[in-house]
Amino acid sequence: MNVGRLVVTCADRPGIVAAVSAFLHARDANITHADQHSSDATGGRFFLRVVLYLDGLEERLEELHAAFEAEVAHPLEMAFTLTSAATPKRTALMVSREDHCALDLLWRARGGELPGLDVALVLSNHPDLAESVAVFGVPFEVVPVTPSTKPDAEQRQLELLAGCDLVILARYMQVLSGDFLERVGAPVINIHHSFLPAFAGADPYAKAKARGVKLIGATAHYVIEDLDAGPIIEQDVIRVTHRDDVADLVRQGRDIERQVLARAVRAHAEDRVLVDGETTVVF
Amino acid sequence: MNVGRLVVTCADRPGIVAAVSAFLHARDANITHADQHSSDATGGRFFLRVVLYLDGLEERLEELHAAFEAEVAHPLEMAFTLTSAATPKRTALMVSREDHCALDLLWRARGGELPGLDVALVLSNHPDLAESVAVFGVPFEVVPVTPSTKPDAEQRQLELLAGCDLVILARYMQVLSGDFLERVGAPVINIHHSFLPAFAGADPYAKAKARGVKLIGATAHYVIEDLDAGPIIEQDVIRVTHRDDVADLVRQGRDIERQVLARAVRAHAEDRVLVDGETTVVF
Amino acid sequence: MNVGRLVVTCADRPGIVAAVSAFLHARDANITHADQHSSDATGGRFFLRVVLYLDGLEERLEELHAAFEAEVAHPLEMAFTLTSAATPKRTALMVSREDHCALDLLWRARGGELPGLDVALVLSNHPDLAESVAVFGVPFEVVPVTPSTKPDAEQRQLELLAGCDLVILARYMQVLSGDFLERVGAPVINIHHSFLPAFAGADPYAKAKARGVKLIGATAHYVIEDLDAGPIIEQDVIRVTHRDDVADLVRQGRDIERQVLARAVRAHAEDRVLVDGETTVVF
Amino acid sequence: MNVGRLVVTCADRPGIVAAVSAFLHARDANITHADQHSSDATGGRFFLRVVLYLDGLEERLEELHAAFEAEVAHPLEMAFTLTSAATPKRTALMVSREDHCALDLLWRARGGELPGLDVALVLSNHPDLAESVAVFGVPFEVVPVTPSTKPDAEQRQLELLAGCDLVILARYMQVLSGDFLERVGAPVINIHHSFLPAFAGADPYAKAKARGVKLIGATAHYVIEDLDAGPIIEQDVIRVTHRDDVADLVRQGRDIERQVLARAVRAHAEDRVLVDGETTVVF
Repeated sequence: MNVGRLVVTCADRPGIVAAVSAFLHARDANITHADQHSSDATGGRFFLRVVLYLDGLEERLEELHAAFEAEVAHPLEMAFTLTSAATPKRTALMVSREDHCALDLLWRARGGELPGLDVALVLSNHPDLAESVAVFGVPFEVVPVTPSTKPDAEQRQLELLAGCDLVILARYMQVLSGDFLERVGAPVINIHHSFLPAFAGADPYAKAKARGVKLIGATAHYVIEDLDAGPIIEQDVIRVTHRDDVADLVRQGRDIERQVLARAVRAHAEDRVLVDGETTVVF
Repeated sequence: MNVGRLVVTCADRPGIVAAVSAFLHARDANITHADQHSSDATGGRFFLRVVLYLDGLEERLEELHAAFEAEVAHPLEMAFTLTSAATPKRTALMVSREDHCALDLLWRARGGELPGLDVALVLSNHPDLAESVAVFGVPFEVVPVTPSTKPDAEQRQLELLAGCDLVILARYMQVLSGDFLERVGAPVINIHHSFLPAFAGADPYAKAKARGVKLIGATAHYVIEDLDAGPIIEQDVIRVTHRDDVADLVRQGRDIERQVLARAVRAHAEDRVLVDGETTVVF
Repeated sequence: MNVGRLVVTCADRPGIVAAVSAFLHARDANITHADQHSSDATGGRFFLRVVLYLDGLEERLEELHAAFEAEVAHPLEMAFTLTSAATPKRTALMVSREDHCALDLLWRARGGELPGLDVALVLSNHPDLAESVAVFGVPFEVVPVTPSTKPDAEQRQLELLAGCDLVILARYMQVLSGDFLERVGAPVINIHHSFLPAFAGADPYAKAKARGVKLIGATAHYVIEDLDAGPIIEQDVIRVTHRDDVADLVRQGRDIERQVLARAVRAHAEDRVLVDGETTVVF
Repeated sequence: MNVGRLVVTCADRPGIVAAVSAFLHARDANITHADQHSSDATGGRFFLRVVLYLDGLEERLEELHAAFEAEVAHPLEMAFTLTSAATPKRTALMVSREDHCALDLLWRARGGELPGLDVALVLSNHPDLAESVAVFGVPFEVVPVTPSTKPDAEQRQLELLAGCDLVILARYMQVLSGDFLERVGAPVINIHHSFLPAFAGADPYAKAKARGVKLIGATAHYVIEDLDAGPIIEQDVIRVTHRDDVADLVRQGRDIERQVLARAVRAHAEDRVLVDGETTVVF
C-alpha cells in the first residue's frame, strides 16, 4: 500500500527530472527508487521509472494522475502511466499441451513471487492441462483451434480475454492473427524456445542440433504480427554439448524457458519494461 | 569534455532528488544519466550518482562544487564528490611476478577501454616484468620487500605512490600493513583468486581442488587491514570439473581474474562504486 | 531395455580398459558410451563408467555380474556396480515447509525428465505440503521432530525409508544424526542454499547480503555427518546486486536451488556420480 | 614426452574399444584418458580419443602408426591420427588491424597456456601490429590485399603458410577464397563476433543493438567456403543491457571473442575437436 509507479517516456530535453521530482516533492511523495535512460545523447528518447511512497496513494491516484498530466506531462509532451503497486495486473495464460511454463508461473504466483500478477484465466486449445491447472484454483477454458475455425476461435478467445491487462503465451503453439493482436487490448508476452534471432520459426531445438551450436537459449518478447520479431524483454542460454540429442535439448530448454519467461513477466508486472521502437528498456 | 559526475551519499529523507535536480537545472546542467539506491525503506542510507552535461564544466567545476556544498550538501547533510569525466584518475599498479592482470589492464588502457585511468606507474617487488611493462611506456619501479625490510620498503612505496588517486594490486603477493593503508591516501583495489568468502588466504585453487567445488571464481575488492575482508566490487566464476587439476584451475582462473579486475577498475574509474559499510553499491 | 551401466573404481594400473572391454566384447555387449578418469597420473584412483547394450540384459544381469566379479573385478581389485538402466532407483524425498525443490522434482519425474527415479515417498516433519504432494499420487508421511523426540522420530523415519535406494533432502531443515546416516543404507543428497564452502550453516542468504557478494549459489552434495561438508555433486550461481534485499535473494535462490538439485539427482540416478574421497567425479 | 594421442573415427559397430584397447595393452601403452561418442545409437558415426602413455613413444611413433593401420584401422575401416603430445602444431595467425585476439593468443602461448601450439608466423594485410607482435619474437609478414590484387595476395599468403599445421584467423577481416581454402592444406579456425547463426555477416554488434538482444556472443569455427557456416568449435555469451551502445558491445565483445578463440584453439591443439559433418564433437 501507498507505493506508486510513475513511468514516463518523452523526447529527451533538459529539466525533465527536475520537473518530475519537484512535482512529487510538492505533494510529499518520497522517491524510493528511480531509473532513467536516454536512447541517445542528442535527440534521443528519454525513459524514466520512479517508485514513490505517498500516504493515501490509492485514494489520491486519480487526482494525482490528472495533476501530473496538467502540470508536467502536457507541457513537456510526455507519455506516462501512474499506477498503484497494490493493484496487480489481471492476467490470462494461453497454453497448448506443454505444461512447464504455465505451471511454473502458476506456482510462482501462488508462492508470492509475482505479486504484480492476478492470474484470472488459463486458456488453451487443448483440454490436456485441465487437471494440473485446477490444483491452483484458476479457471481453465478450452477453445479448440483449427485452420477453418480460427476466426471464430479467436473471437471466442477475445471474449474470454476481455478485461485482461496482460496475456502470456506460455507455450501456446498457434499463431495469433494481426486482427487478434489489434483487438486484444493488452500486451502479449511470448516465450520462444531459442536465442532469437537464431532459429526463429518452428523446431528450434532440432535446428540448433543440426547447426551444432554450443549454447541453446530462450527469448521472452512482446508479440507483434511479424512472428518472432517483437521487442525482446529477456533472454538466457545454457551450455550444451555433442552428447545432447534433440530430446536432451528440449528437456534442458524447458528450464531456461520457464526462467526467462518468469523473469520477463515479473519485470513487466512491475512496470519495469519500456518499449523503445523494436527494442526494450528494462529497468 | 563538459561531462561531470556527481556522487552523493546521505541519510535517506524526502526531497533529495528534487533538491539535486533543481540545483542542476537552475545552472543549465542536463542530467544525462542517474542512478539511486536506498539501503533500507526506512532509516537507510541514500546513494545517488548523476552524470550531467554542462557547457564549460571544467572551468566552472570549482564554483559549482562550492555552490552545491552551500546550497544542497550542507543543508541536507550529504557527503559528495563532483568530478569532471575528462580528468582520469592517476593510477599505480602494484604487481609481483604474475603478469596477466597487470598486462591486461595496460593493454586495455592503451586500447582506450579505460578512459578514466591514467596509469602513471607500475610498482613491483620483483624485476621480472620490467620488459613486458616497458612496451607500454609506463615507468616501472622495483622495491624489494623482505620481512626485515618491509617498513622501509613501504616507506619507499608510499613516496612513489604520492599523488595517486588509485592503487591497484594486480596480483601483488605481499600483505600491506595497516599503517600503509592509512597513509596511502587513495583507495586500493585487490584481485583475489577465489570467490570470497570461500577460500580466503593463500592457495585458493589448491583448496578449491581439495574441496571439489564445481565452480571457481575471482573477487575484486577494496583493501582494508583485515585481509580478504574488504567491500566486494565485482565477482565472477567459471565452471570446472574433476578433469581439471590445480594447474588447470590456475590457468582458467587467470581469465576470470583479469576480467573481474578490469570490470571493477572500470566501474571505480567511472565513479560507479559507492561503499556502503562492508558492502558496495555498484551503479 | 537391454541397456546396462557398469561403474568401476580401482587403483590405476595398465590394462583396465582392455580387460573390461574384452570381457564385454566376448559377451556381445556393445559399449555405447564410456567415460574414464584417473585422479593422478601416477598412483591415483581410476574411475570408469560404461554404458552398454546387450540383448536380454535384464535376464542375464545376475550371471554377468558374477562373471565380471570373477574374471575382471577380483583379479584387478576393482569395486564395481552393474545395473540395468530400466530399473529406476526407489527414492524418498524428505522436506520441511518450503515446497519448491520437492514439487520441482515431482514435476520433473511426472514429466519423464528423471526416468532413473521412482519416487516412492515424500516424508516431512510438517503436514503443510500434503495437498501439493497428493496431486502427484505419491504417498506423503509426516513424522514430527522435536529435540526431545528426535531419536524416536529418526527410528520411525528409518522404518519408512526401508528399501529406498536414494534419499533426497529437498529443503529438509533438520540435521540428521550420524546414527541415522549409518543406518539409512542409501546415499543421501542434500541441497544447500549457498555456494559451499561459503556461507555454510544457517541463514546463508542473510550472510551473503551482509558480506555483499555479487553472486549467490546453491550446492547439491552427499550428506555426511559433518554438516555441509560432504562431497559436492553440483553447484551453480546467479548474479545479484545491491538492489536485492534478503527476500530477493531467497526468491532468486529458489530457482538456482531447484535446478542444481535436479541436475545432481539426475546425474546420480544415471550412475554418473562417483565419490573420490571428499570430492566427486561426475561423468 | 611419452604421451600420445590417438583419434579415431569410423562407422559405429561392436568391438571398437576392445580392439583399440587390446592393441595398446599388447604394446604396454597405458590409456590415461579416453573419450568416446556415438552420433546415433544405430547406424551412427563413432568417435574416440585416447591419451596414452608409452615409454619411448617418440621413437616408436612411426612403427606404432603402421601397426595400428594394419591391425586395427584397416580391418575396422577407421580414419585415425596418432600424434605425440610433445610435437606442437606449427601455427600461423592471420590478423588485420584489431589486436585483441592475436595478442591474447601470443600472450597465452608465451605463458605456457598453449603448449600444443608453436606460433611460427603472424600474417597481416596491414602493417599496424608489427610492433606489438615484435615483442613476442614472432615473425610478422604483411601482404596487402585489394580486390584487384587478391589472387596474387593469396598466392603469396599460401607460400608464407606452407608447412603450417594450423591457421588461425584472429580477426582477419578479408574473406578467403574457396581456392585458398583448398590449397592451404591445414585447418583454418575463425573467430566470429556474434553468437552464430545469429548476426552472420558484417557488423554483428550493430545488428545486435538494433535487434535489442540481451546477450551478445562470439563463435569460433572451422572455415569453409560458405562464410560463417563452418562447424562450430566453441561459443559463449555475455549479458548486455539497453545502457550499452554499439561501442560498449564492441568493447565487451572483445573479451568474449578472445576467450572463445583461445578455448577453441587450445582444444584443437590437443586434438580434442573432431568434425562430424556440419558439427563438431569436442572431447
